[in-house]
Amino acid sequence: MPVPVTPLLTVDILIRMVDQPGWPVVLIERANPPHGFALPGGFVDVGERMEVAARREALEETALEVELVTLLGLYSDPTRDPRGHTVSAVYIADARGTPEARDDARALALYTLDQLPEPLAFDHAQILADYRTWLYEERLPPLRG
Amino acid sequence: MPVPVTPLLTVDILIRMVDQPGWPVVLIERANPPHGFALPGGFVDVGERMEVAARREALEETALEVELVTLLGLYSDPTRDPRGHTVSAVYIADARGTPEARDDARALALYTLDQLPEPLAFDHAQILADYRTWLYEERLPPLRG
Repeated sequence: MPVPVTPLLTVDILIRMVDQPGWPVVLIERANPPHGFALPGGFVDVGERMEVAARREALEETALEVELVTLLGLYSDPTRDPRGHTVSAVYIADARGTPEARDDARALALYTLDQLPEPLAFDHAQILADYRTWLYEERLPPLRG
Repeated sequence: MPVPVTPLLTVDILIRMVDQPGWPVVLIERANPPHGFALPGGFVDVGERMEVAARREALEETALEVELVTLLGLYSDPTRDPRGHTVSAVYIADARGTPEARDDARALALYTLDQLPEPLAFDHAQILADYRTWLYEERLPPLRG
């Protein structure tokens, strides 16, 4: 059987700083195109569980050791990344301390949901809206498509 | 940038026949190794949303048009498929009518949760146990790893 080709698999992590008022979330200003503000994240390695990939990417990009809370959802719109089809598993995670910009991040900052920066890259505005719904209404996002 | 290599992405569908007593689930007896009984499923195509892949695979393998209910979880243990690392998104879906074995299925049958066949292939025993928890206790599976 030929090796199947499937979309590339990524994780994005919605990190809430639970030791700060308003539980601000960590966003990075991307150094590479597509530009804009984005959740920390990256590609899953072969041989790596999703949860491990999520904690690894959070550490690599923000220097934070995060505690995963839940899987928010899978984001799979083929047009969500202009470079090619990626499917992202988005995890909500809690962290304490001070994040530091690393790797793919040009700059890193904390934002409360009422003061999000623009533009948000990829479909991360949708993801943050879904997080808000989960936080305030305790509902996971609907299936789409 | 070189093209990243990530685990292969699959969908598995837990189809409940909601027009039959006890809402039996559809399992197929695999024609190809690894042998055993398994949920219908397969690889996600590039350019295809996860939800579309789930409905397509259900139709191709069981001739059922299913209605997706929820994402049960992501199963990503690197050893779950002896042929290589696949990450499966498992959807719960409802269907009515009569399923028919097609494609990768040697035979297809309906089983209630109290009378599951053995052996179950891959990590599908775990998935079915997680479904039972979701059904009776309204809890999604915990993050693992």
